[in-house]
Amino acid sequence: MSESLPFSRVHIVGTGLLGTSIGLALVEAGAQVTLEDQSPSRAALAAEYGAGSVHAGVSGEHDELAATVELVVVATPPDVTATVVSHALAKYPQAMVIDVASVKSSVVDAVMASASPDDSGARKRFLGTHPMAGRERGGPTSARVDLFTGRPWVITPVSDTPVELVGAVSALIRVLGATVHTMTPAEHDHAVAVVSHLPQLVSSALATQLQSVSEDALSLAGQGLRDMTRIAAGDHELWAQILQHNAESVLPLLDHFRNSVDSLEKALHAA
Amino acid sequence: MSESLPFSRVHIVGTGLLGTSIGLALVEAGAQVTLEDQSPSRAALAAEYGAGSVHAGVSGEHDELAATVELVVVATPPDVTATVVSHALAKYPQAMVIDVASVKSSVVDAVMASASPDDSGARKRFLGTHPMAGRERGGPTSARVDLFTGRPWVITPVSDTPVELVGAVSALIRVLGATVHTMTPAEHDHAVAVVSHLPQLVSSALATQLQSVSEDALSLAGQGLRDMTRIAAGDHELWAQILQHNAESVLPLLDHFRNSVDSLEKALHAA
Repeated sequence: MSESLPFSRVHIVGTGLLGTSIGLALVEAGAQVTLEDQSPSRAALAAEYGAGSVHAGVSGEHDELAATVELVVVATPPDVTATVVSHALAKYPQAMVIDVASVKSSVVDAVMASASPDDSGARKRFLGTHPMAGRERGGPTSARVDLFTGRPWVITPVSDTPVELVGAVSALIRVLGATVHTMTPAEHDHAVAVVSHLPQLVSSALATQLQSVSEDALSLAGQGLRDMTRIAAGDHELWAQILQHNAESVLPLLDHFRNSVDSLEKALHAA
Repeated sequence: MSESLPFSRVHIVGTGLLGTSIGLALVEAGAQVTLEDQSPSRAALAAEYGAGSVHAGVSGEHDELAATVELVVVATPPDVTATVVSHALAKYPQAMVIDVASVKSSVVDAVMASASPDDSGARKRFLGTHPMAGRERGGPTSARVDLFTGRPWVITPVSDTPVELVGAVSALIRVLGATVHTMTPAEHDHAVAVVSHLPQLVSSALATQLQSVSEDALSLAGQGLRDMTRIAAGDHELWAQILQHNAESVLPLLDHFRNSVDSLEKALHAA
């Protein structure tokens, strides 16, 4: 028997690739989903794709959405994620809030810091998460209902996080087909630095080398080169934000990688 | 109507991935193929796979093989390719000889230098080639009859090379399903340095970074990391030879790549 959906009313802020894919999967799972985006046309596009219905957010104190929404999913670029989460915690005082940004320490720290010390309610209603799923092309039109199937989805509870929230969000993640990985925000950031951010930087640096290569030479390229440069085609603005937010974890790895390249170069010189 | 095979009696020296795959494809095309390898059991394995029949090479002056073979394909590791080609030119005075090594200047230069200045016959019977096809796993058991289908296959004629030899080898390559790319040995070596050898080094350097990573972190890895490190799993001994033979073309690229990594590191530090 499959797990039942722990939230039946979900509001998604940010209808890019992740937000729209989550909407598609939640609608398929039977949830009532509302969608909000800084760009009304992008939200409309996500709604047309079947990810939910557009709702511009809370318009007044007695807004129906504010009273009924059980979960807010913040799926915005990492630069604004913490701010949007804090606003959502204030706007939807009954709702749980999760984010899906690719960096966790900076987001979780900022959200916790923005809640006043006695505002334990807000601190206990937020859980940072990160689905390890993506595609080179972003935007609602790249969304897929099965984007999370079989993929890891990290949750980063802190000491304030109630076990009930962890349980409900874990159940939601499993309904979307993903597997739950529990880590601290710092563990997450170190892990993605090595398995995602460093490869992204290396792929970009390699792709840079190809800009001055002749057509004749490129015509000899095989799957190896295509594989090595595929992820370099991702959203550069988004990646710059991700790397900047995780520089502390990425820089030592990049330094170590550069030393490996140095060693190879020296070995080749000596040969 | 498909092109007819320009050589009906082919002798292959070296029954690794490339030699065995060429044998399989030539047998399918109707050629009579003999196989020779330093390791008799490897040659026997290639023969069992259907790549031809084992023949240990010329045993005497009146050896039947020496009199009837029309083409010798040298498919040995690059370290010994030039020597094996020169021996083949002497052993089979009626035959054309091609090699399939991943580096061309060092092989072609050594073959031409080993022929005496008035030995124009030998210089006119050799053509350097390089099929841009491979797999991470080498050896006869990885061979595939369709390994070359749709792949580029470089030929590197020099001023001495007769147009008839270029035509016949080009026809052979097309029968094997590949497309002919004509380059000088130096052009070839520069091209493969950028589309193949640099990516190989970068993939190896990245894979090195993963040796000290926790299972937890690796469990988050996606297709991006797998793609970036796949080619690092290739035959290390073979790759060391290839890179050493092409160091002149590879080193400037590696240096340039290291500068790109430096720039990324500086940008991230400043952010």
